[in-house]
Amino acid sequence: MDLYFSPMACSLASRIALYETGGEARFIEVDPKTKRTLEGADYLKIYPLGLVPLLRLDDGSLLSENAAILQYIGGRNPQAGLAPGDDAGRAHLQQWLCFIGTELHKGLFLPLFDQKAPEGTRQHTLNKSASRLKFLDDHLAGREFLLDRFSVADAYLYTVLNWTAPTRLDLAPWLAVKAYHERLRARPAIARAFQEEMALYQAELARHKAA
Amino acid sequence: MDLYFSPMACSLASRIALYETGGEARFIEVDPKTKRTLEGADYLKIYPLGLVPLLRLDDGSLLSENAAILQYIGGRNPQAGLAPGDDAGRAHLQQWLCFIGTELHKGLFLPLFDQKAPEGTRQHTLNKSASRLKFLDDHLAGREFLLDRFSVADAYLYTVLNWTAPTRLDLAPWLAVKAYHERLRARPAIARAFQEEMALYQAELARHKAA
Repeated sequence: MDLYFSPMACSLASRIALYETGGEARFIEVDPKTKRTLEGADYLKIYPLGLVPLLRLDDGSLLSENAAILQYIGGRNPQAGLAPGDDAGRAHLQQWLCFIGTELHKGLFLPLFDQKAPEGTRQHTLNKSASRLKFLDDHLAGREFLLDRFSVADAYLYTVLNWTAPTRLDLAPWLAVKAYHERLRARPAIARAFQEEMALYQAELARHKAA
Repeated sequence: MDLYFSPMACSLASRIALYETGGEARFIEVDPKTKRTLEGADYLKIYPLGLVPLLRLDDGSLLSENAAILQYIGGRNPQAGLAPGDDAGRAHLQQWLCFIGTELHKGLFLPLFDQKAPEGTRQHTLNKSASRLKFLDDHLAGREFLLDRFSVADAYLYTVLNWTAPTRLDLAPWLAVKAYHERLRARPAIARAFQEEMALYQAELARHKAA
């Protein structure tokens, strides 16, 4: 299994899921600016949208979209318990993966990252997202994880919450979300994945500076 | 099972999935403007985000997020074959549901619908989404459905493609997408769901006008 990733992108969640489950994969780094792998391949020829993560399964087929990949990794290693196997558990896992993907990743963070977005986008996005952050905060108050135990949805939520730093999103009004993020950061698999990808991210920045 | 919906919103996909599978549900209409059900209940007290669809399962618990609900409906009625049960099939279904949810529904159509969005949002959104529409068009060229047979992902894609009319998005450059949309429109379950919800939508508009 090959995992195409870029350091600190949402593919970090797949790395965390692999470390948590003990799953094996070859990690192939994609430069988000040049859209080439560090081995020199043209990533747009592999996946025309140029997004990460992308998983190449053992049969050679490709699987894209973060939530699909996370559930695939969770399902391949059921003993780790990262993805519920019963109908109701699976449904609620999908609910949270979708919420994170649509309301937070796509609805909140991407517009904040987008340097070509029209003027006023930041404030408009923050206004629209306040109800989403409150909903999440209410859910996490008094809970350790999104579901009853750590799941691939937590790996995803932790990953997008990392983007509060580069987007200067202040989590102070959302106490439970802030505490959750700090708590997850201390999990061994997450701390390891973060440290490794942060080093790769610094190397990426240095490469861009030198180019 | 109760399905909270608003006419012609993305909850139309759940209605289609129910009609295709023969699944039973009580449909409860939510006015998207007043956030009250037509029976008079305050929908924000039921679901604080006020979004549809929302499913109340037989055990009373709530399930939100379109992709999760669609997979739940598909999984409850496996004989209809709307949601593959094998690992690879399920993964690719999830891939397409996520693509539609993030890249089309949230990334393309919601900004086009958003009347409070900053000036320039429409053109910026169309520019960013061109690669997504091309990717979809390339996939659909020579195919009848997103997967090998009709699935809940088609119910969702058909539903968001309906929004090309109110958002004045011209599908002419995407021949395969346009042909796909026209083809699906003729499916009996889809034609029935569309007709019913369009009548409810007209009634909703008349209600708003009278208020």
